[in-house]
Amino acid sequence: MVTEILPIPESFSKEQIDELKERIPYLSEQIKFVSTNESKEIVIKLEDFDSKLKTDIVQNFDSLVDAITSWRPIKDRVLKSNSSTINAKAETEANISNFYNEDMIQLFEFFDQKILNISNKFSAELREYPTVLPIGVMQKSQYHIHFPQNLFAMHDIPHDYKVLHTIRSNPEQIEQAFRLRGYLQPCICYHCYEEWADKKMTAGIISAKGRCFRHELKGERNINRKTEFTMREIVFVGNQEAVDNLRDSIMDETWKLFNELGFTGKIVTASDPFYYSDELGKISYQKLSNTKYELKVDSNIKSASVAIASFNNCFDQLSRKFNIKNSSGDEFLSSGCVAFGLDRWVNTFITCYGTDKNQWPEPVKSMTF
Amino acid sequence: MVTEILPIPESFSKEQIDELKERIPYLSEQIKFVSTNESKEIVIKLEDFDSKLKTDIVQNFDSLVDAITSWRPIKDRVLKSNSSTINAKAETEANISNFYNEDMIQLFEFFDQKILNISNKFSAELREYPTVLPIGVMQKSQYHIHFPQNLFAMHDIPHDYKVLHTIRSNPEQIEQAFRLRGYLQPCICYHCYEEWADKKMTAGIISAKGRCFRHELKGERNINRKTEFTMREIVFVGNQEAVDNLRDSIMDETWKLFNELGFTGKIVTASDPFYYSDELGKISYQKLSNTKYELKVDSNIKSASVAIASFNNCFDQLSRKFNIKNSSGDEFLSSGCVAFGLDRWVNTFITCYGTDKNQWPEPVKSMTF
Repeated sequence: MVTEILPIPESFSKEQIDELKERIPYLSEQIKFVSTNESKEIVIKLEDFDSKLKTDIVQNFDSLVDAITSWRPIKDRVLKSNSSTINAKAETEANISNFYNEDMIQLFEFFDQKILNISNKFSAELREYPTVLPIGVMQKSQYHIHFPQNLFAMHDIPHDYKVLHTIRSNPEQIEQAFRLRGYLQPCICYHCYEEWADKKMTAGIISAKGRCFRHELKGERNINRKTEFTMREIVFVGNQEAVDNLRDSIMDETWKLFNELGFTGKIVTASDPFYYSDELGKISYQKLSNTKYELKVDSNIKSASVAIASFNNCFDQLSRKFNIKNSSGDEFLSSGCVAFGLDRWVNTFITCYGTDKNQWPEPVKSMTF
Repeated sequence: MVTEILPIPESFSKEQIDELKERIPYLSEQIKFVSTNESKEIVIKLEDFDSKLKTDIVQNFDSLVDAITSWRPIKDRVLKSNSSTINAKAETEANISNFYNEDMIQLFEFFDQKILNISNKFSAELREYPTVLPIGVMQKSQYHIHFPQNLFAMHDIPHDYKVLHTIRSNPEQIEQAFRLRGYLQPCICYHCYEEWADKKMTAGIISAKGRCFRHELKGERNINRKTEFTMREIVFVGNQEAVDNLRDSIMDETWKLFNELGFTGKIVTASDPFYYSDELGKISYQKLSNTKYELKVDSNIKSASVAIASFNNCFDQLSRKFNIKNSSGDEFLSSGCVAFGLDRWVNTFITCYGTDKNQWPEPVKSMTF
C-alpha cells in the first residue's frame, strides 16, 4: 500500500469535499481507501503504484476538482420526519448473510405484501418482466451513457462449432468467446416504458417486482448496497398534474406504512448518481426541481442509512425517449415512479429490531397480511 | 437463403437421426433450418453462405456423424403415465406474452405454493440465493465445460477514469470495456452445493426458487424454452439410500400434484444436453443408470411437450466437486435434486385449459392455498 496526498482547494465547502471524496474511487480500481487529514488534504491509499498510474490519477483528480469548483451544491430539504418520536434506531451492524433463510423470506414477503396493498389502492396493474433488458431498450433509456459505472451486461457464446470447440481445448480462452447479448436491468421501470412505447394513452400505472443489478464500488458494498437486489416499483404515466399527485399520494401511503412498521427516519430531496463530473449540474437541478425524494432510516451505521424507497418525477424525459404520447398525440406524457428496495426494508428492519421476533413491533410480529 | 444437402449413413436409427438433427444447429448460427427429405438426407438452409463456411460445415458435420455412428442410443423408459385417463391435452398453441399479468402471477404463486407444500413435507430449509454464480463456483461445477452452448456470463466495466471516459466519447467502444465478473445461474442447486461445500454432514435438504438463464438455440426458443425462467429446486445430500428414497418420494408427491391439478402426461427417463459429441456416451449412461427422470405433459405442440419437472440422482459426482463428506469424513455424500420449471407449469396449464377461469379444473379454479 502506498499513500498519496492531494490538495483540496480552500474554497471547497463540506458538500464539495464530500462529492470529491465520493468520486475519487472511480478514478482507478487501484485506489483502496480515500480520506481527509487534519490539514484538509485528500489522502489516498493505493496498491501497485507506478509513476504512470500516479500521473494519471493526479491529472484526473485535477479535472475532477475543476468540475466540482464550478458546481453549486444544493442542501437536502426534509419533507417528512418522525425523528423526534424515536421508535427504533439502527445502532449496531446486524449480522446478515449473503442469502435469505426462512424468517427473512417471510419478512420479505410481508413487506412486499404491504407495498402491494399500496399498489392496489392506486389500481396498479401487476406485471412480472424478464431480468434482462434488450440492447435496444438500454439504448432508448440512455442509462448506459449516464451511469456506465453501474452497468452489468449479459454475454453468451455463439453457437458455432469452432468457437465452442476452442473453449474445450483452451478453457482459459472462454473470455474471448463472449458476445454482448443484453443488459441486466438496473431498475424495473424501463420494462414498463417499453410496454407503453409508441402508444397514445391518457394514463397508466404498473406495479412490478424484480431482481436488479448495479455495479457498486467494491469499497462501498455492504448488505444494503449489493450488486444484486430486489425492487418493487410503481410506475405511472399521465399528465403532469396526475403524475405529481400520484407521486405525493404514494409517498403519503409509504410514510404511513413506514411509521406503522416501527421505522424512524426522514423523507429528503435527493439526486441520481450521474457519473461524469460535467453532469454535476444535473444533481443540483434534480434537487432544486424536486425530481427525487428518498426515504431514509435514521442510523449511525453506513449500511443502514441508505434509501429504502425513492419517489421520482421524470417529467416528460422518459416518455420522450420511449415515445409515449397523450391520446391526441400532440404532447408527450409525464411519468414518475416510486421504487422500494425490498432487501433494504428487510435488512434495515433487522438492524433496528434484531432477529428475535419477540422484540419486533406488533404489526410485524403478528405479520397480519 | 441457400440450401445444402448432406448424406445420412444408411445404418442410422431414428434416434441417431434425431440426435444428428438436434446437434446441427450448433455448428453455425448461419444455419436457420434443418430437416430431412424423402431420400433420407439432411437439408440445411443457410444465410450468408460462402465456400469457407461450406467447407467448415461439411467438415464439422462429418465429425458429428462419426461420433453418432459409434453411439448406442437408449430408448426412453416410462415410469408413470396417466395418458389413458385423459383429462386435458394441449392441442392449440396458447397466446402467451413475454411478461406475466396479474392472473398469471397468481397462477404462478399458486403452483409454487403447492410445490412449497411438498418441500415442507420433507422439512426442506428455505433459501433465497443471488442470481449470479461467482466464477469460482462455476469452475467447481464444471457446467461451463460441459454445457458451454447454454452459458450466460455477467460483465461489468472497470471503475477506471480512462475506460469510463472512452465510452463517453465513443459509445460504440463499450463492448471492449466489458470484463467478466460472474455467470448467470443455469440452475439453483450449485448455490446449495456451495453452501454445503467443505462440510462434514449426515444429510441436508434445501428448497429455493430463483431466476435461471440458459442460452437456447434461437430456432428452438418458445414460451417454454426461454433464455430466462424461474425454477424452484429441492436439493438434498445424504447417503445413497437416503438420496434414492428422497428422489422417489418427492417424485410420488409431484405425480400426485400433477394429477390433482388436472394435467395429463408421463414421467420418463431422460438425460442432460451434453454439448460435445464425444460425450454422447454420457447420455446413454444417464438413461441406463436412471440418473434423470422428467415429467412431461401430453401434447402435440412443441412448446407444451417440454419437461415441467426433473428428478435427478447425482450420486457422488457433485459432492466430489464441492467436497461434501459424511460425518466421519471418509466418504463423499450422494446428492440429488428435483427441479420444477415454474413458468412451464403456468404456460402448459394455460395451453391445456385456456385463460378462462371457468374452464379450469376445480383445485386451480378455487386456488385454495
